[in-house]
Amino acid sequence: MNAPPLRPTRFPELASTDRAALDALLDRVPMAHIGLVMGDGPFVVPTLHARDGDQLLLHGSTGSRWMRALADGAPVCVTVSELSALVVARSAFESGVRYASAAIFGRASVLSGAAQLAGLELLTDRLLPGRTAEVRRPSARELAATMVLAIPLEHWSLKVADGFSDDDPTDVAGPAWAGALPLLTVWGDPQPAPDLRPGIEVPGSVRALLSTD
Amino acid sequence: MNAPPLRPTRFPELASTDRAALDALLDRVPMAHIGLVMGDGPFVVPTLHARDGDQLLLHGSTGSRWMRALADGAPVCVTVSELSALVVARSAFESGVRYASAAIFGRASVLSGAAQLAGLELLTDRLLPGRTAEVRRPSARELAATMVLAIPLEHWSLKVADGFSDDDPTDVAGPAWAGALPLLTVWGDPQPAPDLRPGIEVPGSVRALLSTD
Repeated sequence: MNAPPLRPTRFPELASTDRAALDALLDRVPMAHIGLVMGDGPFVVPTLHARDGDQLLLHGSTGSRWMRALADGAPVCVTVSELSALVVARSAFESGVRYASAAIFGRASVLSGAAQLAGLELLTDRLLPGRTAEVRRPSARELAATMVLAIPLEHWSLKVADGFSDDDPTDVAGPAWAGALPLLTVWGDPQPAPDLRPGIEVPGSVRALLSTD
Repeated sequence: MNAPPLRPTRFPELASTDRAALDALLDRVPMAHIGLVMGDGPFVVPTLHARDGDQLLLHGSTGSRWMRALADGAPVCVTVSELSALVVARSAFESGVRYASAAIFGRASVLSGAAQLAGLELLTDRLLPGRTAEVRRPSARELAATMVLAIPLEHWSLKVADGFSDDDPTDVAGPAWAGALPLLTVWGDPQPAPDLRPGIEVPGSVRALLSTD
């Protein structure tokens, strides 16, 4: 088994063992960065993910080289990060960002049969809740072309930085401003596909997502 | 040298060799995911970055284990990704996201002296343009505690997916909606630090950033 650096040596005060905070981050941020060793070097690729209880699901083409490497048991680090604000300090040195970042270490297993289908439905509904009920079921050909991987939420670390800068007293007494500038993510207006047939309205799943903004 | 998978085998139509598009992505997205091999497995950590012409700059504490590993010449993959929309297809299979993702492969070198200071100023002004001129210069102690690394923009790959779904004709003829739902990033209102002294106004750098929203 991969021996990850689970205990941060830097800024240990930012480290969290709060499983609920881990779950909330994973459920809030749809994109993960998958790290593995390909050839003789590291490789990092972004992909969508969905948490299913105590495991993280990924999916992709059966032709994807990194998916196949994970299916073959390669050690993986899945990192899910969120940048939520600039932290403006009274010095460049103390300036930074508010962020949350989780790293999950382990190996993946391939889901098949009913578990594969359930995983795909979860991945679809995670991105756009309720969408599965609005579209047809995957065909046999589509299922055969898609791999679903599960990674246990067993070895993980979480770091959260959510405060203000910790400036030197001499800087606090100086003329520079300090604070934070939140970075927000919002949905824009839906764009109909160019080949959308007339009379097909924006579906409930999209309307529900926009109403939670 | 690391032998990266520079030619994507999957979705080769998404691959780009457009250096200007690479630069625009790097300059637009402040967070990078750094992948390296730590111990016997992959490790992925988010950090801020700034492009300086033909190289990418990173900075961090001299006590950081992954920074020290990079300084020692470990092969690195730096991935910078942006998720810009949900692509809502007429089937789960064709659904996905609009994204851009760059992977830069190489090894880092440590900047020192004037190059270190210039790098730190660029990193500060990249995040908040004009901030360097509003704060004091780094102290000798701060410079000694900070490492600045440069990675050449020499071996890289770029993928951009920015269209709509490519649905089967039978699905296009069916009842399901298709389109895209843009994901936008906006700045919120500035939050003054709790220890901000009265009478210090929001600085020009912050006001300029908000006015470009």
